[in-house]
Amino acid sequence: MDAEELREHGHRMVDFISDYYKEIESYPVRSQVQPGYLRNLIPDSAPDMPESFESILEDIRHKIIPGVTHWQSPKYFAYYPSNSSTAGFLGEMLSAGFNIVGFSWVTSPAATELEVIVLDWLAKVLKLPEQFLSTGKGGGVIQGTASEAMLVALLAARDKALRRVGQNLLENLVVYGSDQTHSALIKACKIAGINPMNCRLLQATFMTNYALSPEVASESISNDIAAGLLPIFLCATVGTTSSTAVDPLAALGRLAKANDMWFHIDAAYAGSACICPEYRHYIDGVEEADSFNMNPHKWLLTNFDCSTLWVKDSSNLIQSLSTNPEFLRNKASEEDLVVDYKDWQIPLGRRFRSLKLWMVLRMYGVANLQNHIRTHINLAKHFEELIATDTRFEIIVPRVFALVCFALKPMPNGQDDASKLNLKLLEAVNNSGAMFLTHTVLSGRFVLRFVVGAPLTEERHVNTAWKVLQDHANLILGTV
Amino acid sequence: MDAEELREHGHRMVDFISDYYKEIESYPVRSQVQPGYLRNLIPDSAPDMPESFESILEDIRHKIIPGVTHWQSPKYFAYYPSNSSTAGFLGEMLSAGFNIVGFSWVTSPAATELEVIVLDWLAKVLKLPEQFLSTGKGGGVIQGTASEAMLVALLAARDKALRRVGQNLLENLVVYGSDQTHSALIKACKIAGINPMNCRLLQATFMTNYALSPEVASESISNDIAAGLLPIFLCATVGTTSSTAVDPLAALGRLAKANDMWFHIDAAYAGSACICPEYRHYIDGVEEADSFNMNPHKWLLTNFDCSTLWVKDSSNLIQSLSTNPEFLRNKASEEDLVVDYKDWQIPLGRRFRSLKLWMVLRMYGVANLQNHIRTHINLAKHFEELIATDTRFEIIVPRVFALVCFALKPMPNGQDDASKLNLKLLEAVNNSGAMFLTHTVLSGRFVLRFVVGAPLTEERHVNTAWKVLQDHANLILGTV
Repeated sequence: MDAEELREHGHRMVDFISDYYKEIESYPVRSQVQPGYLRNLIPDSAPDMPESFESILEDIRHKIIPGVTHWQSPKYFAYYPSNSSTAGFLGEMLSAGFNIVGFSWVTSPAATELEVIVLDWLAKVLKLPEQFLSTGKGGGVIQGTASEAMLVALLAARDKALRRVGQNLLENLVVYGSDQTHSALIKACKIAGINPMNCRLLQATFMTNYALSPEVASESISNDIAAGLLPIFLCATVGTTSSTAVDPLAALGRLAKANDMWFHIDAAYAGSACICPEYRHYIDGVEEADSFNMNPHKWLLTNFDCSTLWVKDSSNLIQSLSTNPEFLRNKASEEDLVVDYKDWQIPLGRRFRSLKLWMVLRMYGVANLQNHIRTHINLAKHFEELIATDTRFEIIVPRVFALVCFALKPMPNGQDDASKLNLKLLEAVNNSGAMFLTHTVLSGRFVLRFVVGAPLTEERHVNTAWKVLQDHANLILGTV
Repeated sequence: MDAEELREHGHRMVDFISDYYKEIESYPVRSQVQPGYLRNLIPDSAPDMPESFESILEDIRHKIIPGVTHWQSPKYFAYYPSNSSTAGFLGEMLSAGFNIVGFSWVTSPAATELEVIVLDWLAKVLKLPEQFLSTGKGGGVIQGTASEAMLVALLAARDKALRRVGQNLLENLVVYGSDQTHSALIKACKIAGINPMNCRLLQATFMTNYALSPEVASESISNDIAAGLLPIFLCATVGTTSSTAVDPLAALGRLAKANDMWFHIDAAYAGSACICPEYRHYIDGVEEADSFNMNPHKWLLTNFDCSTLWVKDSSNLIQSLSTNPEFLRNKASEEDLVVDYKDWQIPLGRRFRSLKLWMVLRMYGVANLQNHIRTHINLAKHFEELIATDTRFEIIVPRVFALVCFALKPMPNGQDDASKLNLKLLEAVNNSGAMFLTHTVLSGRFVLRFVVGAPLTEERHVNTAWKVLQDHANLILGTV
């Protein structure tokens, strides 16, 4: 690590990446390569002697970029977004530059303390209840992903319950969500040794816009208690992955509390929208939660990975996740004066991720971040209006944030079923490289998901995407 | 994300980081701030309007850097190293630039395929058995940390055993390591719902240089089987954290196999050394392993995080960790033509981390990476020789790699016990800012750990460190 070599190559890499962003619209959005494409382009073993940086950049241009699906393309409308920004990128650079491993406070006090403070900042922007701030028993922590946030919350809930009833009752524990809850919930159960058969993914239907009904949850909990089981964890979602359904937090929270259960809120995607006063009501009821999670890396201009989790009582996490080997002992930790984030997460080591979140909040300011959200939601509204102009298409569920769930209607002659038609359309537009969107299934129907969320997306991109969809629909429906 | 704004600020950040490396020797190695130092230096809420990049850089200089413990300082000898390099840094930059989320192949085929290929490269450099290559049922994957590698291996082992004996026998499962095994093992047990009382941390003593004795392990396993328990997992370590002990892999591996147990090798630190032919013998016996882990982010010039895990049969990981929600389904995955790394790890999302490992291997070449290891080991030997010149000090266990375990001998007059003396010395040198080292306890003795591993460390830094240690010893022993 020679400072001058770093400087020289670093400048070239900055130009390379800036040029990439200048040209990003010219690339097919979803990579068009076939499985195994890279194996023939790359030697089958590492070189013994150094190769030039220029030859590596050439390979990135000609071998790697064709295999990249361009999440930052303004024509990317798939899954949920992964937001990149100048500030987020600079924060990642600086974190890689320091290259510290911040498991304990002493390993870089700034890493821990900045994280504590910036998570308080974001909690205040979201108007989370004071108990989630670091000033009391609670506080925030940056996890890698919402899956990890879900897992650590579940582990805390599991062990809190087992401390009450006895360690040998693991197989009696029951966990609740809806069939719209992210698959991270059942994965967390499997990891935590909770019987997946005891993970209740309760049906959510079109009648509630795919939100979990408190009555359905209540009945399921009562049945389980009657059967001698022990409900411990209820996961509510604000903005489900399939259709941005919002579970009724207040009612579910009260239900959880009444049954001594941990109440976790997964607002991975839609939490970002709640920084706007007009969308904040979607997390009304968060005061009932034990843990609340949202992903600034999805929709708040903070480069992946940055998943923020707040808890009201951090001692539950610490009791589940703490280790204290001799080789990590140090004065500050022993005196209990500091936070050691290793005890709030699965891994031991952790990167200095608060830098990028801090830089995003400062370089843009809350007002601009709100505008960023509003712009995307308005573009999604615009897309919805475009769909309404073409009677061959329909909206499947009412739009809430910046996701539009839509589909081609079944053909009147019944020649082809609607699922096949829509799958054809999906494959056709994605194979064209002109845009990328993904699908889901709701009540048995194959549904196209159009999410506005890439920072570079403007109205013209939405208009073009709509044109691409119409053109391919013409071809598929034979109406050219 | 404006390309020209990114370019302008990116260049400034490159200069900022290069300057940091130029000045890195001038900083106190271990941050000298007190707990809570940052709270008073930073506003208590996020700004509504944007702030300038210059003001942020100023704050990084004056408020953040004083709270950084400089892991890349040539005077850093603590814990195990966290290697930074120009190539590793450039790989992190590019990964942050693309900002893709590579959970499935289709989300960026290059991310998955490069990882498969580069893990094969590194497996070949390490001369791992062919079954760990991607060409058969096995393959490699980049985890964030060795803790996560340990956890996913344990989950695979747990579920493989439970499929054999029935899901309801979770509480009968037993896991084995030594009391020198990393604390990640007991943490993994707790997470996985395995009773921590069934995690056998068998005593390793000075007699075996703190390696786990196969006889001790065999006896413990037999006792557990006789008691009706089910041994499922044996963890061996190559380079324990306290003293770089090397467990006898071949014998332990055979023992595990004879008892139908999963055999995991944690070579997080010392695995890097095994790229040198003269150190490769330390992983002889790896052919018995089900999973093998080492951390290029520790000692192979690859910026944190990058923990490489190889398995012989990836289906075990996939059976434990796979989820397949509708919204992630896609043609390539359905046709089973590709690897979806989401099913090999805890989180769903993942960064494009193979870029940095690929760039490190290419920009330095295997020969230079071997030199990097040899240089550090030679410097550690040199430090060992320096210690031998001062009769007040002693070596506690024979050096194996680049860690020297040493201590001040007890004072002949018995005034102060040796643990207190050495703790005093540790605090004194770390408080001086002139170097940073950490400690452990072996057989009840407080031991100082001196690890050579920072890429910038040269002989002069080792000599100065030794001088600092001697000077502070003079003060403490009153021999000035």
